[in-house]
Amino acid sequence: MKQFTIRTRARTDFVRLDDHISDCLAGAGLADGVATVFVPHTTAGVTINENADPDVPADLETVLDRMVPWQGDYRHGEGNTAAHVKASLMGSSVQVIVSGGRLRLGTWQSVFLCEFDGPRTRQVWIQGISNR
Amino acid sequence: MKQFTIRTRARTDFVRLDDHISDCLAGAGLADGVATVFVPHTTAGVTINENADPDVPADLETVLDRMVPWQGDYRHGEGNTAAHVKASLMGSSVQVIVSGGRLRLGTWQSVFLCEFDGPRTRQVWIQGISNR
Amino acid sequence: MKQFTIRTRARTDFVRLDDHISDCLAGAGLADGVATVFVPHTTAGVTINENADPDVPADLETVLDRMVPWQGDYRHGEGNTAAHVKASLMGSSVQVIVSGGRLRLGTWQSVFLCEFDGPRTRQVWIQGISNR
Repeated sequence: MKQFTIRTRARTDFVRLDDHISDCLAGAGLADGVATVFVPHTTAGVTINENADPDVPADLETVLDRMVPWQGDYRHGEGNTAAHVKASLMGSSVQVIVSGGRLRLGTWQSVFLCEFDGPRTRQVWIQGISNR
Repeated sequence: MKQFTIRTRARTDFVRLDDHISDCLAGAGLADGVATVFVPHTTAGVTINENADPDVPADLETVLDRMVPWQGDYRHGEGNTAAHVKASLMGSSVQVIVSGGRLRLGTWQSVFLCEFDGPRTRQVWIQGISNR
Repeated sequence: MKQFTIRTRARTDFVRLDDHISDCLAGAGLADGVATVFVPHTTAGVTINENADPDVPADLETVLDRMVPWQGDYRHGEGNTAAHVKASLMGSSVQVIVSGGRLRLGTWQSVFLCEFDGPRTRQVWIQGISNR
């Protein structure tokens, strides 16, 4: 297992991880298989979406904020229920195919850490599994 | 593949699976790799979220109920459309890294079966894949 | 890695992939392991839900449209922000256990490509990993 840390800059902040993940996989020598990108937190998640226009992750942040408002009739005493819900909506991991030693993403795809209760320092864990 | 069953107790009910998963992996002898935890149902899902405060899964259940109300202008004749939608929002599987023979979750993370149309008896399937 | 293409027929369109996936796995000779079904697009996703009543995917499409309306106060200039958000809500991949050479889905489960900005021709990538 490989890992790295990411410093987020705001309560809600989507951070591209592609280069970090590629570095981990190069270090692990994975040529063909699947990489699991796992976020060991409960108020942050991970998703794949468009990297070309920064308005796409910005819109995604905004729409999720509207779907699950920060202020609400919640029971959890820490006041960050919305972040927990959004983490489950995005999920704790993504799986990406590795082929020919390269992370195989679509033309417009990047992997984003989804910070929902920042700014914080977050960990990302990578496990590559070979198909041979 | 390993499997076990879980008895849920209410229409909406989040049940911790960590110990069951760890037992399956110990039985399979998986030391390092990734475990896929798969729910073979369409009105239940699986997610990872906080285990310390039971108000977190309780809030998650409540917020999902508000986002997708049980009663609504739905076509599906069985009347459980909301459960189907919530199952897809959470997903049918989670992937967890296994390292040194242990399930690697963050400090506050647990894996929860998400019952959305209970009470029922649910199956959980586990497939561990070694990285060697 | 195996791949195939799917032609979608409407802006929102859920298309069953089970037979295509099984064909890919048979071609790859995977007996026991996990298959990753990955959609390399940012306005389409993939989910597992009920295949018996076509009203279930129809309701899922409708509920997602209500949760994230096509028209809205969005920044992304292409006008398809809703499709990007719904892609992240469903996710870019599903993982399905393979056992005894067969895709292991629950009785009522199928894998659906989730088109949110069609009609288009979409790619689906399959990577099977054996548990040896």
